[in-house]
Amino acid sequence: MSELKQLPFRDVNITGGFWADKQKLVRDTVIYAVRDRFEDTGRFKAFEFSWREGDEHKPHIFWDSDIAKWLESAADIILKNPDSDLEEQIDAVVELIDRNRQPDGYFNIYYTVVEPGKRFTNRDCHELYCAGHLIEAAVSYYYATGKDRFLKIMCDYADLIDRVFRVERSAAFTTPGHPEIELALVRLYGVTGEKKYLDLASFFINERGTSPEFPEDHWGLPRYYQSEKPIRDMTEADGHCVRACYLYSGAADVARLENDSSLADACKRLFDSIYLRKMYVTGGIGSSHAGETFTVDYDLPNNTAYTETCAAISLVYFASRMRLLDVNGKYGDVMERAMYNGVMSGLSLDGRSFFYTNPLEINLAERGRNDAVRDPGCWYPDTLRSEVFGCSCCPPNITRFIASIGDYVCYYGDETVWVDQYMSSTAVLGPEDEPIRVSQRTGYPFDGRIEIVVKRAKGKRIGLRIPEFSRDNYAIEVDGGRAQKETVDGYLYIEAKTDLVTVDLTLDVSPRLVYADPRVRADAGKCAVCAGPVVYCAEGVDNEGGLFEVGFRGKPEFDVQPSEEFGAPVMTANAVRAVTGGMYSDTRRFEPYRLRLIPYFGFANRGETDMIVWFNDFGD
Amino acid sequence: MSELKQLPFRDVNITGGFWADKQKLVRDTVIYAVRDRFEDTGRFKAFEFSWREGDEHKPHIFWDSDIAKWLESAADIILKNPDSDLEEQIDAVVELIDRNRQPDGYFNIYYTVVEPGKRFTNRDCHELYCAGHLIEAAVSYYYATGKDRFLKIMCDYADLIDRVFRVERSAAFTTPGHPEIELALVRLYGVTGEKKYLDLASFFINERGTSPEFPEDHWGLPRYYQSEKPIRDMTEADGHCVRACYLYSGAADVARLENDSSLADACKRLFDSIYLRKMYVTGGIGSSHAGETFTVDYDLPNNTAYTETCAAISLVYFASRMRLLDVNGKYGDVMERAMYNGVMSGLSLDGRSFFYTNPLEINLAERGRNDAVRDPGCWYPDTLRSEVFGCSCCPPNITRFIASIGDYVCYYGDETVWVDQYMSSTAVLGPEDEPIRVSQRTGYPFDGRIEIVVKRAKGKRIGLRIPEFSRDNYAIEVDGGRAQKETVDGYLYIEAKTDLVTVDLTLDVSPRLVYADPRVRADAGKCAVCAGPVVYCAEGVDNEGGLFEVGFRGKPEFDVQPSEEFGAPVMTANAVRAVTGGMYSDTRRFEPYRLRLIPYFGFANRGETDMIVWFNDFGD
Repeated sequence: MSELKQLPFRDVNITGGFWADKQKLVRDTVIYAVRDRFEDTGRFKAFEFSWREGDEHKPHIFWDSDIAKWLESAADIILKNPDSDLEEQIDAVVELIDRNRQPDGYFNIYYTVVEPGKRFTNRDCHELYCAGHLIEAAVSYYYATGKDRFLKIMCDYADLIDRVFRVERSAAFTTPGHPEIELALVRLYGVTGEKKYLDLASFFINERGTSPEFPEDHWGLPRYYQSEKPIRDMTEADGHCVRACYLYSGAADVARLENDSSLADACKRLFDSIYLRKMYVTGGIGSSHAGETFTVDYDLPNNTAYTETCAAISLVYFASRMRLLDVNGKYGDVMERAMYNGVMSGLSLDGRSFFYTNPLEINLAERGRNDAVRDPGCWYPDTLRSEVFGCSCCPPNITRFIASIGDYVCYYGDETVWVDQYMSSTAVLGPEDEPIRVSQRTGYPFDGRIEIVVKRAKGKRIGLRIPEFSRDNYAIEVDGGRAQKETVDGYLYIEAKTDLVTVDLTLDVSPRLVYADPRVRADAGKCAVCAGPVVYCAEGVDNEGGLFEVGFRGKPEFDVQPSEEFGAPVMTANAVRAVTGGMYSDTRRFEPYRLRLIPYFGFANRGETDMIVWFNDFGD
Repeated sequence: MSELKQLPFRDVNITGGFWADKQKLVRDTVIYAVRDRFEDTGRFKAFEFSWREGDEHKPHIFWDSDIAKWLESAADIILKNPDSDLEEQIDAVVELIDRNRQPDGYFNIYYTVVEPGKRFTNRDCHELYCAGHLIEAAVSYYYATGKDRFLKIMCDYADLIDRVFRVERSAAFTTPGHPEIELALVRLYGVTGEKKYLDLASFFINERGTSPEFPEDHWGLPRYYQSEKPIRDMTEADGHCVRACYLYSGAADVARLENDSSLADACKRLFDSIYLRKMYVTGGIGSSHAGETFTVDYDLPNNTAYTETCAAISLVYFASRMRLLDVNGKYGDVMERAMYNGVMSGLSLDGRSFFYTNPLEINLAERGRNDAVRDPGCWYPDTLRSEVFGCSCCPPNITRFIASIGDYVCYYGDETVWVDQYMSSTAVLGPEDEPIRVSQRTGYPFDGRIEIVVKRAKGKRIGLRIPEFSRDNYAIEVDGGRAQKETVDGYLYIEAKTDLVTVDLTLDVSPRLVYADPRVRADAGKCAVCAGPVVYCAEGVDNEGGLFEVGFRGKPEFDVQPSEEFGAPVMTANAVRAVTGGMYSDTRRFEPYRLRLIPYFGFANRGETDMIVWFNDFGD
């Protein structure tokens, strides 16, 4: 098979619908909300390297990365919507980076201003993670503007890292405590064509876990750092979720570019470990707040779910890279599960506040248990979004994620163009003079009808991902006529016999009950409501009385209504509530209950209230 | 109404059935198993006051109480089954107590041997708690043997406590950190008739919470110590469960003996707070390991339930005292719920090992989450019983509880004799020359037929508790004929028209599904299996595949079989297992599943295995 490629978002315009709205929100509001909070908290000023002991806003080890992700977000925005103010702001930061970097190319605020002389001594202090995010920002800015100053600065830094870590091995550790630089180096290789960057990424991937170099700190289990064994020996996703999925993403990149089948196999095992056993219905990952980690198979508690926004994003990154190793619809399925739920719940509807953690259940009464004794209490995720966090990785991460959402629309090879994500868009690929153009018009995911026009693809195959939820129920017409409906690994293929192919695909996005693998203890005997890839939830503010006794008997009827507030439909359903005869009784009857549901991503936008995703399954 | 009295177990002989078997086990095995472990760990030797710094087995602050409860257990045994060896062992300890007590009557191992000079300085160091248990032991030993040496020693000590705490107020604190002495002083008042002991109990009850005197230690919330307000102002059971119920027990005693209606009302509120909102189906209480506390209403998680054996016992103590304040069947209902489940699960079937905590669910796979990160993990209760604990309060507590189980059979007043607990027994009350005799023959709780013969009660009423589970379905014949079936507050009353009344009562103890108040989040959408007062559970060792996806559809049929191993029936039920189509799918079907159930009290007697009480409720 020819090498597969992902069509980058710079070649995809989102022209309408949910993601166009969110990109506008990012452009108009989110980018400035994040910037303003980063200014308030001294993160931008830290790039002046003027902080001295006793000053406020002591630079934190990961502030470089917070700003880097903001720079990348801004670059992604101006790529599509040139904006000289934003560009000037980026340039101002780049100027500071250039001015304050060390003569040998090293750039890190904390290790220059706060702990000078200690560079590359503490594996857990995010130094290479910050470098990775700066590299990503530089790459994005180069694509956005063609200006190469930032890129060259980061090439210098990458060259230094290559020398110190790979050639001289003179750092106090071999591989980063928090992966990220691996995938960034692959991007740097992509834009520069310099193979040394791929080699360095490969070095970090392959060295990891070959020697015991985890720090003996609070989280100091080697598995927390994905360092207990070489990645090729790993069989289950483990440890800190974001670190894990960034590492796996870099590994999948390296496996593809080096045509390394044993590394690719390891990545497939790790992906399946998440996909089949460690992922919430929202695409969230990380069930334990302790270390922000994966735990054991099927251990997915809802009320104490950690499910960091960055972790859901990292899962999309990993899935999109796996998609290039393995043509299978499951990757796109996972991506949209995360995109519409566990990622988007991280952002308020007004674009000004953020969730770091994304619980699947809020039971305010239960939380009173933590007042009953002083210590230790139970950990619970936040119930309301915040404008900024001490560790504010998620806000700029979701910002760049939305700005670059077009990354996930199309994949292609020499013989095939795949449409993986459905959204109104125009994608252009292939030779500049005669590009293939894939246009979509759709209200997906809230409307299942998708009109696709593919131009100049004659002789190629068009692959359409049929999401798992619709695999048994969809309709397709090609050029106004019937088409074959066989899917192969989640894709339906159409031969483009002419240079203009029109496809009318109708997916079934009607609301449905979803059941978890019964080994998921938290969801056993329960069901969730989904419509297409969108998970729905119920909030106390919409539903009188306790939410937790509500359930479904038989197939409910859903009444779906558009909602401007949520930018997505809301619905009511004929559910039931169990009524019992006392604290413990042998009587239980069901009374009808009109349950009001909103999209999960929109929860907690109307104050603190109970919320639930998994309802009782009271049978057929 | 005339004053109500509880018929003490010394006037009740258990003649057969479940409790006779357990009393035999206590007499033959448990009392020695506890003794031997207390010898191994230096607890008996501590009474020699010979420990010096550097020696092994440093006396702990509550060792006096461990041995005191053993002494009380032994006394309760020899009251019914004279045993000169046991009596000699008790006498030997009494001799040591007498020899090693201070000239002013003070007795405490820790504060004489380990921290001399610090007596009555630390409210949380169990000094008055130890005194209370020694008083209880002395009272029991006096009843068992008529020997008054131990009793007099403890009267001296109580006199000292009265002077220091009530008269002089010279101690560093006003009321005990761990209640217990209050109810013990009431027992001492009962046997001596000395009102000063009742007054001192009343003093401790009434002073509590009037000044902030809680210690600032690890658990230092005043509510943990039931010290945040006077007991009359309390509306919900709160803090450390055993402390709470011992305090409430003493308060109920004082309310009754002093005819104090506001105190009685407080006790009723506190009881209902437990009964209606904070009690597990097993009668266990205390849902948080942190502080062994009550938490908030309906917060009753199963897998992390603390539910200390002592706490279930303390609830029986509280309920039995409430029964004297308020003629209501709910007290007997709660008592038998605890007796057959949350208390008895504390003892292994072989009588040699003990649970401190009594979970309602064990999910071994889930516990793997604690290996995923170093700290902090989730707290989980033990999965197997132990022979002794560092804090080994539960083993001698369950021992004395079983030895004195006859305490709960009958209550009486001038006009009425109530039968509250059904077990084969002979109870004798009233004038020695012409006592009323209440004989029961029954296989209850495993057989619902109860034959009751009441002699010499002509002119009185006989009150029979009709347990809530059978209130709508029971049969009764009096003297071979029909009887009225109206119940008043849970009791059916019969007028004794002759001096020989025979009653054939048949309660419905057939297995049934039980539903929790749906506000109990952990049990919403779930059901338990009970037969009479006995809660059943399923263990992994009996049931192939995962237990947690099992549930019931409609009314199951139960096949009940006797089991010698458990000393109680086991059963199978036609349940179902939910089968779904993947990690998250819209298909779910039920397949038949033959579920094997054992009595909850018998769980974890066959090695470490999964266990579940609350099954999925898949509707009708």
